[in-house]
Amino acid sequence: MSFNTFGKIFRFTTWGESHGPAIGCVVDGCPPNINIKEQDIQIELNKRKPGQSKFTSQRKEDDKVQILSGLFEGKTTGTPISLIIYNKDARSRDYETIKNKFRPGHADFTYFKKYGIRDYRGGGRQSARETASRVAAGAIAKKVLESKIGKKFKVIGAVTQLGIIGCDVKKWNDQDIRKNPFFCPDKSFVKLWKKYLLSIRKSGSSCGATIEIRARGVPVGLGAPIYSKLDMDIASAMMSINAVKGVNIGSGMSSAQ
Amino acid sequence: MSFNTFGKIFRFTTWGESHGPAIGCVVDGCPPNINIKEQDIQIELNKRKPGQSKFTSQRKEDDKVQILSGLFEGKTTGTPISLIIYNKDARSRDYETIKNKFRPGHADFTYFKKYGIRDYRGGGRQSARETASRVAAGAIAKKVLESKIGKKFKVIGAVTQLGIIGCDVKKWNDQDIRKNPFFCPDKSFVKLWKKYLLSIRKSGSSCGATIEIRARGVPVGLGAPIYSKLDMDIASAMMSINAVKGVNIGSGMSSAQ
Amino acid sequence: MSFNTFGKIFRFTTWGESHGPAIGCVVDGCPPNINIKEQDIQIELNKRKPGQSKFTSQRKEDDKVQILSGLFEGKTTGTPISLIIYNKDARSRDYETIKNKFRPGHADFTYFKKYGIRDYRGGGRQSARETASRVAAGAIAKKVLESKIGKKFKVIGAVTQLGIIGCDVKKWNDQDIRKNPFFCPDKSFVKLWKKYLLSIRKSGSSCGATIEIRARGVPVGLGAPIYSKLDMDIASAMMSINAVKGVNIGSGMSSAQ
Amino acid sequence: MSFNTFGKIFRFTTWGESHGPAIGCVVDGCPPNINIKEQDIQIELNKRKPGQSKFTSQRKEDDKVQILSGLFEGKTTGTPISLIIYNKDARSRDYETIKNKFRPGHADFTYFKKYGIRDYRGGGRQSARETASRVAAGAIAKKVLESKIGKKFKVIGAVTQLGIIGCDVKKWNDQDIRKNPFFCPDKSFVKLWKKYLLSIRKSGSSCGATIEIRARGVPVGLGAPIYSKLDMDIASAMMSINAVKGVNIGSGMSSAQ
Repeated sequence: MSFNTFGKIFRFTTWGESHGPAIGCVVDGCPPNINIKEQDIQIELNKRKPGQSKFTSQRKEDDKVQILSGLFEGKTTGTPISLIIYNKDARSRDYETIKNKFRPGHADFTYFKKYGIRDYRGGGRQSARETASRVAAGAIAKKVLESKIGKKFKVIGAVTQLGIIGCDVKKWNDQDIRKNPFFCPDKSFVKLWKKYLLSIRKSGSSCGATIEIRARGVPVGLGAPIYSKLDMDIASAMMSINAVKGVNIGSGMSSAQ
Repeated sequence: MSFNTFGKIFRFTTWGESHGPAIGCVVDGCPPNINIKEQDIQIELNKRKPGQSKFTSQRKEDDKVQILSGLFEGKTTGTPISLIIYNKDARSRDYETIKNKFRPGHADFTYFKKYGIRDYRGGGRQSARETASRVAAGAIAKKVLESKIGKKFKVIGAVTQLGIIGCDVKKWNDQDIRKNPFFCPDKSFVKLWKKYLLSIRKSGSSCGATIEIRARGVPVGLGAPIYSKLDMDIASAMMSINAVKGVNIGSGMSSAQ
Repeated sequence: MSFNTFGKIFRFTTWGESHGPAIGCVVDGCPPNINIKEQDIQIELNKRKPGQSKFTSQRKEDDKVQILSGLFEGKTTGTPISLIIYNKDARSRDYETIKNKFRPGHADFTYFKKYGIRDYRGGGRQSARETASRVAAGAIAKKVLESKIGKKFKVIGAVTQLGIIGCDVKKWNDQDIRKNPFFCPDKSFVKLWKKYLLSIRKSGSSCGATIEIRARGVPVGLGAPIYSKLDMDIASAMMSINAVKGVNIGSGMSSAQ
Repeated sequence: MSFNTFGKIFRFTTWGESHGPAIGCVVDGCPPNINIKEQDIQIELNKRKPGQSKFTSQRKEDDKVQILSGLFEGKTTGTPISLIIYNKDARSRDYETIKNKFRPGHADFTYFKKYGIRDYRGGGRQSARETASRVAAGAIAKKVLESKIGKKFKVIGAVTQLGIIGCDVKKWNDQDIRKNPFFCPDKSFVKLWKKYLLSIRKSGSSCGATIEIRARGVPVGLGAPIYSKLDMDIASAMMSINAVKGVNIGSGMSSAQ
């Protein structure tokens, strides 16, 4: 069995390989009469897009999204919303050299053992490129929440630790996050992180990071008890991202203490 | 809630409006290592395509399908298969006259009452055009079943009653079905049906029909007991088609007698 | 895979074998603050109960239902409602003789081929006794609909054909249905049906029947388009019942004409 | 909507309130021909049972499980397995005093706001007592995995941090875990933890803990990519437990460094 759908009432199904002709998703269960423009989705995709600074993957993609269904005269109709992003940078020849190799830290071997076949071009379906589809679906979810809850509802994320260097989350400033290439909420750390990352890069390595997401104006009672509680749905969504290895809610693991 | 997914292990989600830029579906849960070509799907879509004789809807569509994901070197990989059919004949101006009218026998009014908005162009999502997406998904299901069960497995359908005139199902001949514009399995009725349908058309009317589907070589134990039994899944799929108002399995309603 | 859950928002999962200690179901997704008493469910179960006349199966069961969860001070709380019916008449010794036989018209053989094991006592899970669980779930659904739609909402069913003898549905009278052992809506047929059924019984046979269900006061827009439309959900639920071989909505199969 | 089902192929639905007549679950999708005894489930429930030492909740419950369906002659049949645990210690009068109070650290207020009604007896559905149902379902899952994977498959958990005191996981010894009231895998810490916990208890407080679960002999390819990957399903299940606020897989959050 494979399972490429997330959600229960508002649901999305993602599809597409890193180096296939396109990737995309179908959002089902979106309420009607929500104003959505392609640009609303594009704004979020642009934040995700790699190759924007020398500090990230250098893959070049426009990640230009098109809405193929579910809207009429700028409003959702309650029918499924199909989103497509055509792949530009599908340089699959570059991958010929890894055709017969299983990369560590990737799911190459697992896919091959499980399915007896694998699309070795750029990680195929296991590529982090799949996250573009969920960013697109998330942009729609955001519009729905803003429309239902109102402007007081706001979700914002930032990188709060880069490798061994954490920033000072008490100095978190929403406005700073988009002003540096690291999405750091505390501008006093930008210089240090830059230096640190360049040194790591120089040594031919890379590092992990911690992100923190803050939601404000969330109404009481979102989610449903037990097997659809908000904590569970968040952990679930986060852990389905390739690189995510831990999720904390509130004070998280430190609440043990 | 809207629900545009059918199936439990092998599942497909359809999307798209009659006069939007495209329609399509995402097939999830398809087993890996099944040989599938676009042409396998196209063959089935060509059978469904309207405008092939003067006896059906005159809408002209190529219904040219493209596979966007889920295959690698001609084989399924176990990842979601995204299929797209771009709409050519999207003459939405033709529908301006019905913008403010609710057509009988369509779900126009229901959609409007339910969602407070409707895409009036050609029935939007309620258009029978949605069936192209499921024909495409069905073509993949067929390849899977042939691959798993073998060549002895065969499903074939025919029209066995046209308005008030039923044909003789005892004279059913698989070979005859595709040789007449009515998909009649008994060639001796073709002439009569033609005459009958032309007279109905002349009077500005249309008529209903009964179709019969025969599956051969079905292994024991397909489906699962109670809420996924084969009878249920078939009835369920058939009844989700706009025009279908009754489903019989085996001797059906007549088994009461 | 087995699948014993029906429904999407209001869902129920049934469990239990004909001759196990108990049968029951869990209703999930029931809205809060609906008044429900065990008696509301018992009333519906009493209608289903076999052994009430000499014209049906002679199995004797109280079918006494207990509510184990989901209610507080007589009202639903939005949590799952667990219903249990203990089996009294679990005479499994009676079935020793069929231990090694597969009965025609039952799913004995299918279960055995599919699972490699079968509970031969009274049909086990395939017994029509499973319908008691869904009658119980249906009783709750009825209360929810009455509460949400109001008293104008009414669903009533009757037997309209018994073997080869149909009654006159134009003379349908709600009040008559429960006054005869055949659930016939037209009292003028009761005598004839009685005579007919006794003659069939005498000859050691049985016969099929057609039931008609009438729903009044149904609001526009119940259900959801395509793969959850009301027609589909009804056909689906009906066809999952062992003995049901055909479903018509509205004029049904005759709409072909 | 409420959602009390977990899993996709092997699924369970839990039901029951802390102080209702019983709690339980229905396991659907369990493969046939697995040997399961009530005792297999009871062993796991006994581990969970509160009141076994002075260091835990003092609620006294036998947590005696009964299997009501899905087995025949000691083997699963592929049909739903219904498990029930009758509540003994349903002292709901004890809760009269908190009838009109919302306790901090519980979901009392959230339930009330969401549903407009709450079962205030012992937390009702939000009680940690719900975990007994999933332990029971888990015991069945364990038997399935042992049967399919073999004896090399083993899952074992331990408490590795108690409040501010972590034990030395390098000294983890499977055999020690069940020999102390703290499920500590390193016996050298038992004395210290005991002293620590007694001092906390004396001061009228309580503390959190960290648990570590080790799975050995897991075959390659368990789970399914993206929205059903093993990491996701684990995080999801763990986070649906009331008290869990963080989940790490492998090196977890520390992989950022």
